[in-house]
Amino acid sequence: MNRRITLASRPVGLPKVSDFHLIYAPRPALVGGQALVRSVYLALDPGTRGRMSEDYPYGKPLAIGEVISGDAVGLVVASEDPTLRAGDVVVGKLGWQEYTVTRGRELRRIDSGRAPISTALGVLGVPGLAAFFGLLSICDPHAGETAVVSGAAGAVGMIAAQIAKLRGCRTVGVAGSDAKIAWLRDALGIDAVINYRTVPDLGKSLEELCPDGIDVYFDNVGGAVTDAVVGRINSGARIAVCGQLSQYNLERPECGPRWLGQLVAKQAKMQGFLVSEHAEQFAVALEQLGDWLQAGKLRYRETVTLGIAGAPQAFIGMLDGRNQGTQLVQLTD
Amino acid sequence: MNRRITLASRPVGLPKVSDFHLIYAPRPALVGGQALVRSVYLALDPGTRGRMSEDYPYGKPLAIGEVISGDAVGLVVASEDPTLRAGDVVVGKLGWQEYTVTRGRELRRIDSGRAPISTALGVLGVPGLAAFFGLLSICDPHAGETAVVSGAAGAVGMIAAQIAKLRGCRTVGVAGSDAKIAWLRDALGIDAVINYRTVPDLGKSLEELCPDGIDVYFDNVGGAVTDAVVGRINSGARIAVCGQLSQYNLERPECGPRWLGQLVAKQAKMQGFLVSEHAEQFAVALEQLGDWLQAGKLRYRETVTLGIAGAPQAFIGMLDGRNQGTQLVQLTD
Repeated sequence: MNRRITLASRPVGLPKVSDFHLIYAPRPALVGGQALVRSVYLALDPGTRGRMSEDYPYGKPLAIGEVISGDAVGLVVASEDPTLRAGDVVVGKLGWQEYTVTRGRELRRIDSGRAPISTALGVLGVPGLAAFFGLLSICDPHAGETAVVSGAAGAVGMIAAQIAKLRGCRTVGVAGSDAKIAWLRDALGIDAVINYRTVPDLGKSLEELCPDGIDVYFDNVGGAVTDAVVGRINSGARIAVCGQLSQYNLERPECGPRWLGQLVAKQAKMQGFLVSEHAEQFAVALEQLGDWLQAGKLRYRETVTLGIAGAPQAFIGMLDGRNQGTQLVQLTD
Repeated sequence: MNRRITLASRPVGLPKVSDFHLIYAPRPALVGGQALVRSVYLALDPGTRGRMSEDYPYGKPLAIGEVISGDAVGLVVASEDPTLRAGDVVVGKLGWQEYTVTRGRELRRIDSGRAPISTALGVLGVPGLAAFFGLLSICDPHAGETAVVSGAAGAVGMIAAQIAKLRGCRTVGVAGSDAKIAWLRDALGIDAVINYRTVPDLGKSLEELCPDGIDVYFDNVGGAVTDAVVGRINSGARIAVCGQLSQYNLERPECGPRWLGQLVAKQAKMQGFLVSEHAEQFAVALEQLGDWLQAGKLRYRETVTLGIAGAPQAFIGMLDGRNQGTQLVQLTD
C-alpha cells in the first residue's frame, strides 16, 4: 500500500484540511531501470502553497488529484538503476507519498554517517543552500555590518541568521512568536530579536536594535516586515529575496506602500533567487555547511509530525507560523 | 543684479508658481580664491521636487528662502581661483540664479568646441551618465535581449533607450504623450513605443510588444508602469531604478500591488543607483558618450525656456510631463 496526499480542491486563503485527500494507492511496481524508494522524512515547504492555486504565476500549478509536490529523504528498497543500491539513502522530489519509483538521476545520495538524514531536508539541503547562496552570493555580508533576517526561525532563516553571525555581522532576527524569539536569542545567540506580531511599532524597534542602520536583509516573508526594513537600510544595502510567506495565502496581491525611491536614495540592490541557479556550487556549499554543522557552529531545529495523514494539518500550521525550524513529516522509522 | 529663484512655501502635490519667489539680489562679490560664474543654461531636474518637501527622506531639504538647487552651465566672468580663467565654460551645482561665486573644485570645465555647451546638462552630463551607468553597469544588456525604458523621452530615458539600441536590444520606450512617442519612434528609431496615458491596457501592450518577455528595465517613473513591466520580466532580468517620477508629487507613499515574489520566481535583480557612485569612471563614460554623439549614434532633444523668471512654470510643466528631453532654462545668450 502507498498512502499519498493529493490536491482535492484549490484552497481559498489559508488551506483547509478538506483541500487535501488521503489516498490508499497500491505500492508502485518497479519499472525497468528505475528504483523503488520508501520515504522516511518529507519536508513541507511554504512555497508549495502557490502551486495549489490555478493562477500560479511561476510554473505549472498542481492539478486536482495530483500528489502534492515536496522533497523527501528515503531509503532505496529495490533498484534496477545501476547507480543505486538497496539501502542507499537518497533525497529528491518524491512528493507527499510513502513510496516512489524514480530514476537515480532524479535523486542525490546522502552520506548518512555524517549527519542525521533529516538534515538533507534542512541545513544540508535546499533550505541550507538557500541561506548560503542568498546570504553569501547576493548580500556578501562583512564583519561589523548589520544584517536583518525575516522568518528567522524558519528552515532557511535560522541558517541565514547564523551565517550572518559567522560572518561577523550584528544580526537581528524577526519572527512571529515568543518561543521562536527566545530560541533565536538563547540557543542561536542572535544579537537582537523582534516578534513582529506583538511589537507595538516594528519600525521603531528596528531603529532601536539597528542603531547603525541595516546593511544586509535576507527576506523570507515580505509584506509589512520588508516595508519596515527597507525604510532603514544604509547606502549600498544588499537585499536577498528568498520567500514571501506573508503573501502566499492571499487571493489577490496585497497592496503596500511604494518604496523603490528608497533603493535609489540608498543605491541599494534587491535580488530574488532560486537555489537551482547555483547547482554547480552545491557540492562546495554542502561541504562548508557540513563543516560548520560538525563544528557546532550551525544549529537547527525541526518540527516533526508523525505519519503522512498528518501532513495537511502540519502544512497549514506551518503557513500559520506554528512550526519552528524545518517542518518535517516522519513517514517511517 | 542677480535674479534668483527661492523656495517661498513647501508645495502640496504638484508645485504652484506661488511656491517660488523671484528675488532681485545684488550681484555677488568675488571673494578671495573663488570665481564669479554667469550661468547660461540651467537644467531642471524632477528630483528637485523631493528636496522642496520638509520630510525629504534622502538628504537635507531646501529651507524656505533658499535658492532652488540645480545644475547649470556657465561662463567664468572673473576668477581669483588659479584653476579657472575668465572665459572658461564650466558646469556645476550653481542653483536657480544668474550669478554664483564658487571654487574651481566645485566645477567641471567643458570643452566647448566638441559639442554645444548645453549638452553638459544632458547627454554629456548627469542625465547621460545616469543612462550610461544604470544601463551598462546594472543591466548589462546583450544583443537580442528586450529592454524597456520608462520615461523614455526624458533627459535620461532618451539616452538609455538609445544605448540599449546600440547594445543590440529590442528596445521598447514608454512615455506619456503622442508627440514623445512619435519622436522616439521616428527620430530615435526605438523599436516599439507605448503612450502609457492613452493605452487601454498597458500590460497587454507590453505583452504584444515584448513577445520574448523583458530582460532589462530602466525605470525612471515607477508606479503602475513598473508594476506592468515587472509582471512580464524573464528569468535573470536586471532592473535599474533611476527615478520614480510618478511618486514625487504625492503627499504620502502611494500604495501598489506587492510583487517581490516575482523577483524570486524570475531570479531578477533590481538596483537603485546615483550617478555619484561612479565618479571615478566619469571621464571614460563621457569620452564614450561624446564619441557616440559625434558619430551621430546618440541624438537628443531639449526643451528650452527663456529667462530665469520662467523656471518655476517650466519645472511644473516638466513634472506634469510637458517637456521633451532635457528641460533647460536659458539665462543669457
